[in-house]
Amino acid sequence: MNNDTICAIATPPGQGAIATIRISGGEALPVCDQVLITKENRLPSLQKSQTVSFGRITDRGKTILDEVLTIVFRAPHSYTGEDVVEISCHGSTYIQQEILKLLIENGCRLARPGEFTQRAFLNGKMDLSQAEAVADVIASSSEASHRLAMNQMRGGFSKELEYLRSQLLHFVSLIELELDFGEEEVEFADRSQLIHLADNLQRMIARLAHSFSVGNVLKNGVPVVIVGETNAGKSTLLNLLLNEEKAIVSEIHGTTRDAIEDVVNIQGVTFRFIDTAGIRSTNDEVEKIGINRTFRKIDQASIIIWMIDTTHFNTEIEYIADKIVPRTKNKKLIIVFNKIDKISQEEQQILEDEFLPQVPAERIYLSAKYKKNTERLEKALLKAANLPELTADDLIVSNLRHYEALTKSLYSIERVIDGLKTNLSGDFIAQDIRECMHYLGEITGEITTDEVLENIFGKFCIGK
Amino acid sequence: MNNDTICAIATPPGQGAIATIRISGGEALPVCDQVLITKENRLPSLQKSQTVSFGRITDRGKTILDEVLTIVFRAPHSYTGEDVVEISCHGSTYIQQEILKLLIENGCRLARPGEFTQRAFLNGKMDLSQAEAVADVIASSSEASHRLAMNQMRGGFSKELEYLRSQLLHFVSLIELELDFGEEEVEFADRSQLIHLADNLQRMIARLAHSFSVGNVLKNGVPVVIVGETNAGKSTLLNLLLNEEKAIVSEIHGTTRDAIEDVVNIQGVTFRFIDTAGIRSTNDEVEKIGINRTFRKIDQASIIIWMIDTTHFNTEIEYIADKIVPRTKNKKLIIVFNKIDKISQEEQQILEDEFLPQVPAERIYLSAKYKKNTERLEKALLKAANLPELTADDLIVSNLRHYEALTKSLYSIERVIDGLKTNLSGDFIAQDIRECMHYLGEITGEITTDEVLENIFGKFCIGK
Repeated sequence: MNNDTICAIATPPGQGAIATIRISGGEALPVCDQVLITKENRLPSLQKSQTVSFGRITDRGKTILDEVLTIVFRAPHSYTGEDVVEISCHGSTYIQQEILKLLIENGCRLARPGEFTQRAFLNGKMDLSQAEAVADVIASSSEASHRLAMNQMRGGFSKELEYLRSQLLHFVSLIELELDFGEEEVEFADRSQLIHLADNLQRMIARLAHSFSVGNVLKNGVPVVIVGETNAGKSTLLNLLLNEEKAIVSEIHGTTRDAIEDVVNIQGVTFRFIDTAGIRSTNDEVEKIGINRTFRKIDQASIIIWMIDTTHFNTEIEYIADKIVPRTKNKKLIIVFNKIDKISQEEQQILEDEFLPQVPAERIYLSAKYKKNTERLEKALLKAANLPELTADDLIVSNLRHYEALTKSLYSIERVIDGLKTNLSGDFIAQDIRECMHYLGEITGEITTDEVLENIFGKFCIGK
Repeated sequence: MNNDTICAIATPPGQGAIATIRISGGEALPVCDQVLITKENRLPSLQKSQTVSFGRITDRGKTILDEVLTIVFRAPHSYTGEDVVEISCHGSTYIQQEILKLLIENGCRLARPGEFTQRAFLNGKMDLSQAEAVADVIASSSEASHRLAMNQMRGGFSKELEYLRSQLLHFVSLIELELDFGEEEVEFADRSQLIHLADNLQRMIARLAHSFSVGNVLKNGVPVVIVGETNAGKSTLLNLLLNEEKAIVSEIHGTTRDAIEDVVNIQGVTFRFIDTAGIRSTNDEVEKIGINRTFRKIDQASIIIWMIDTTHFNTEIEYIADKIVPRTKNKKLIIVFNKIDKISQEEQQILEDEFLPQVPAERIYLSAKYKKNTERLEKALLKAANLPELTADDLIVSNLRHYEALTKSLYSIERVIDGLKTNLSGDFIAQDIRECMHYLGEITGEITTDEVLENIFGKFCIGK
């Protein structure tokens, strides 16, 4: 880490009405003085903190590159804790690049990914879990994942960890005090009280660690696989689910189409749909490989939608049932009977009564093509996802690094409990408590290495 | 046009570190009061103009949607001339959409394309040619086109038009004064002086109208067609030119790849490369259609690059020469001898001496594959484009609508001159002068219709 003054485009890449370039570091104001002059002929370095000025970017005082708005934030009252200037220019890619070039010519360096947030962390504006949440806030695409990330960014998780660490510190100080007076055989803390304290800490850490199973799904989406014979209508159904979502998005901006792909938000819950090839019994070796791949994809999913073309029952169905049903243990199965617009009420009734009655599954009768009853499928998906109702204050871990650190600290606190129960020497117990604190400290960044930081911030976008 | 309060995302679409949402209209502050509260628990409507506040977006005071920066601009000191609030939020697409939704729920309407700039025009913050230049500034991707648009946006063109109109007004008032005293046979203005004035105006308008040929090329690029036999290396050459440019762009942000396509900036000049199918004599009817299309594309270009594979001379060359050379009249022809790494010095010398010596063309010997001498081609392209050196103050018309209005006003002023020379009655002359003023007024928007405005602003992006 060095103290160069850094710059980057902070707004999304591409062309728009306006774009923002962010500059941070000790030389932010002097550099801007070289390229910027406000309407009142003032230099940015004379601009008051947290005010906006209208100004011109000029290339060595010659050509006017753009008319811009400038905001100055003086250290430490800025995002990074350093002097920060934000320039809002016209959103032409040419202008954005030229301003960056000009800033670099005058002594800035292009920021590395996440470098602004990394500086915020290093300058004590936020802890590491909050810094990580900044990237999650930006990447989150559903209400649930957004809420998790926002809570973490605002320090909800940090407070909990701080509490845990203060409890552990209290704990270890009791043990270590005992050790200091070890030869006098004093017992400052009642063992059963210590066990009680350790049990409490274990429960709190375990709850956080276990919340990852929910957090991970909220962040990355509930994996859903759609299987069935060829032409059962899998693509039509998927497109239907995708298009409705896309329509909402494009109505507002027509933008994130690429990002959505086959991820769909239904009432704030993200579902990640996994595409599969149609299943049928075949002797074609190449096709067999594709079908086997379908079966493996079932294993990655937690919900299986089995689509059946009700107009086209044949012996394949039994083959497919034999292949799918055994794979649905510990997963939710939704059987979708498609094309019900083409069958009679009686035929549907027969299906309801007689189709694999012994297989536990939600059964939905719909027409993907005519969008009939598709809302029932959405309901079934939400029910199958079985996510808890979360409030803004719920602490849910959604970051793999945090989960791993929590798991390690859980082992440590469990060793502490074992040690207390088996009357292990205080030295060893103290060591395990310190280890537990160490792992929790890794989450907030009290304990960290350059490698860890590089790993974390390297995944950020440039400009954040 | 109505006075709704409008909102839109102003930054480029998609995900980034930050995004800006712009709100304009009489209700901008009251609406923001519903969804925004600053850190100091103040409402945006109490925030001082042109200051920045840190605040929170909340959904009816419940969930915190995001932590944002808010800038308030009070009417008339804003882009649109109305009350404007700019909200800088985290650049997640989810957050951007949710904030828009929230603003709309609280009484805003999604802005139409260009509606902010349209309001700026209607509120007298800029004239119509300046408003049009805003879109050009954002779209410009080369130094030259950027400079044209910036000059126009800053009012250079407007000043010239204002001067012309004031001269015309003076002119018509002289004529009309004469008419008032018509029966007394007074001649207030010396006819020869009037002719001199009209001549001057005609020259100024003509210069502007004629600058369009340069302005159009600067804005849209010099059309270049690359032709030649199949496998002459046309694609390699094009990729070479494109990639070098793309590399520069992606070094800075990795963004505008889509926009570049086959437009290349060489030393600030934009070239628009037109792809063609390889030429060869053929009896295949489908292929013939493709080749005929190539010939038609030559007609659209002002520079023709004819690529020749020097390792593969055959009778096709004569066929191609017969087809291409007659089509190069009034255009620049550059013959590129490719793959010179594979031929000897002697062979190259023979080419230089003997290849169609009678055809006027720039001749470049290069290797596209090994990037040898490609800079010579760039030099040749710049020379062939033959663009004048422009200073920041040069007035160049680059807008087709302006060109058409100028052309019409030019006809009018020419009729005025004819009228003066043939001693036409003052009424008719005055009418032609007024017509000339009318057309100039169309450019600045002093004379305009809803249809014209819709046409102009409909092509803007949303948020501008």
